[in-house]
Parts: sequence; structure tokens; C-alpha cells
Amino acid sequence: MNFNMKEATEVLERTPQTLEYFLTNVSEGWLQCNEGEGTWNVSEIIEHLIEGEKNNWIPRLEMILQEGENKPFPPFDRYSHLNERSNRSIEQKLFEFKVIRIQNITKLNGLIESPLYLERTGLHPEFGIVKLKELLSTWVVHDLTHIAQIVRVMAERYRADVGPWKEYLGILKRE
Amino acid sequence: MNFNMKEATEVLERTPQTLEYFLTNVSEGWLQCNEGEGTWNVSEIIEHLIEGEKNNWIPRLEMILQEGENKPFPPFDRYSHLNERSNRSIEQKLFEFKVIRIQNITKLNGLIESPLYLERTGLHPEFGIVKLKELLSTWVVHDLTHIAQIVRVMAERYRADVGPWKEYLGILKRE
Repeated sequence: MNFNMKEATEVLERTPQTLEYFLTNVSEGWLQCNEGEGTWNVSEIIEHLIEGEKNNWIPRLEMILQEGENKPFPPFDRYSHLNERSNRSIEQKLFEFKVIRIQNITKLNGLIESPLYLERTGLHPEFGIVKLKELLSTWVVHDLTHIAQIVRVMAERYRADVGPWKEYLGILKRE
Repeated sequence: MNFNMKEATEVLERTPQTLEYFLTNVSEGWLQCNEGEGTWNVSEIIEHLIEGEKNNWIPRLEMILQEGENKPFPPFDRYSHLNERSNRSIEQKLFEFKVIRIQNITKLNGLIESPLYLERTGLHPEFGIVKLKELLSTWVVHDLTHIAQIVRVMAERYRADVGPWKEYLGILKRE
């Protein structure tokens, strides 16, 4: 097991500003492309990250601390951000993500009063008993997953353009 | 086909500083972990990106412009950076990558005197005839590939830590 609070926080702190640097002022072509019908574009992925900050990570963490295994987490709708399509610019979305993430890291540090809390358990509606430290590890890997998704979606746009080099570019290999 | 110089340059310009922001001052654990024997850690991936700036993209572009299809590119050793293990810090490597990338974008803009040059062709040792615009598209997708690789390598470190959430995290699904 590799999780610790310091290293996990290093990633959580960096993700929003990393994406802000990467995506601010890029052309709409990069932001609107996707991997085909039913897949997300870059802008939708940022909305999904914001949604997680609002309704997933901290609320579940609080439930573990308050309810333990007594009550399952309310299910998190991973597609809810698609229902509230907003016309905000990518810069506005990235700013919201950055602000809410800073607030959540502050909350996180306030809530984990002792390292022993990391072992506390809650009830996931599908998985059953889960540990608080598993939830926090997942928060980190969830960031990494969506950074990977963003660059994969962008790479897809040049699938035909790279010509024969496609063979060397792992990111263009479909699962 | 989606390639154009402006949008391709947007990505090439942003990659080094994006990685610099993401990786500066993170713990050694994130930089030294890999995906098992024979795989690269984050630090080695940055070395590989530097190597490409020195020996791959601009030299091949110049060969296309100077030699056309007369002479194949010298093969690019994708593992050569592993032979020159240096003890430089990640911050020094990221700085070198940033500087050499800025220089190379300046060279690129100087070399492509006309959009017609994008159609010029060269001889790849394996693929045969390739277009200059395919080489440039590949440069962009190569950046995206290695950003994806960096976050995938980091995610791997928490494979066990996420517990049952592994199922929801695409980045942990092995090819």
C-alpha cells in the first residue's frame, strides 16, 4: 500500500492548475472534439470533475465519519453534468474547479483529525464496506484517469493526421 | 484531417510548462514508481521527451526539407535516454525540456516558410514515404501519449490502495 495524505494531497492540489495551464486559450477544436457518439469532450470532462468536487468526494468522506457503516452513500450519478449543459467558457469552468478543489482540500485537512480516521469505514451502495483511505486514493486516481482521458480525446482528433506513425503511438490504440 | 499549424503549436507550446507545473516539488515516490520491470518512471519519460527534442522532430523535419525522399531518416533510438542516466533533479530536466521546446518551436516557425511545405515528403526507414504534416501531427500526439503515460504510471502506484473502486477507474485497466 502506498497511500499517504501528503503525497495524495500533492496530486489533488496540482490537478486543477495543471489543466488550467494546459487548456486556457486553446482552440475550440481541441475542446469540442470527442471519441465518437456518447463520449465526452474536454469541456464535459471538466464539468464532471467539478461535479465530483460538489457531490462525491467530500460528501462521502463526511458520511463515513458521521454514519460509518450504518447508511450507504447516496449513489453518485457520473453523468449528471451532462444534464446541465452550461455555456460557460472553459476558463470559467477551470476556475470553478480550482476554487472548489482548494476549498475541498481545506475541508479534507479539517476533517482528518487523526491518521486513525483513514481506517474508518463506510458503506458503498455497490461495493459494500469501503475504507476512508480507499476513497481518498480513488479521488487521486480519478484525477489521473481524467487527465489521461483529456489527452486521449485530443489525440483521437489527429488519428488520421499522423499517418503511418499511428503504429508507434500507444494512445491511439483502442482498448 | 484536422492538422493545422496554429492548433498543433498550441499543444507543443503548453506541454513542458504543464508538466512542470504538475511535477515540480512532488515526492520522489511519484517520480520513481513505474509499471514493473522494463517500464519507465516519470523521470525517464521526461528524459525521453528531451531526447526527442534533440534528435527526432526537428532533425527529421530538416531532412524532409533538405533531402526529400532521397535519403531515409536515421533511425531514432527510443531507448537511448536510458543509457545516459543522469542524476539531475526533475526540476532541472523539466527546465531543459521547456527551453529546448521553445527553441524548437522557433526553429519550426522559421523552417515552414509556406503552408505548401506541409505537403513535402521524406523517407522513413520503416514506413517509407511520409509527409511533413504527418511528422508534425505525430510530434503533437507524442506529447499527448507521454502525458497519458505519466499519469498512468502514477495511478499504478495506487492500484491496491483504491480497493474495490479499481473497477470504475479506466486508467487501471491493463491493455
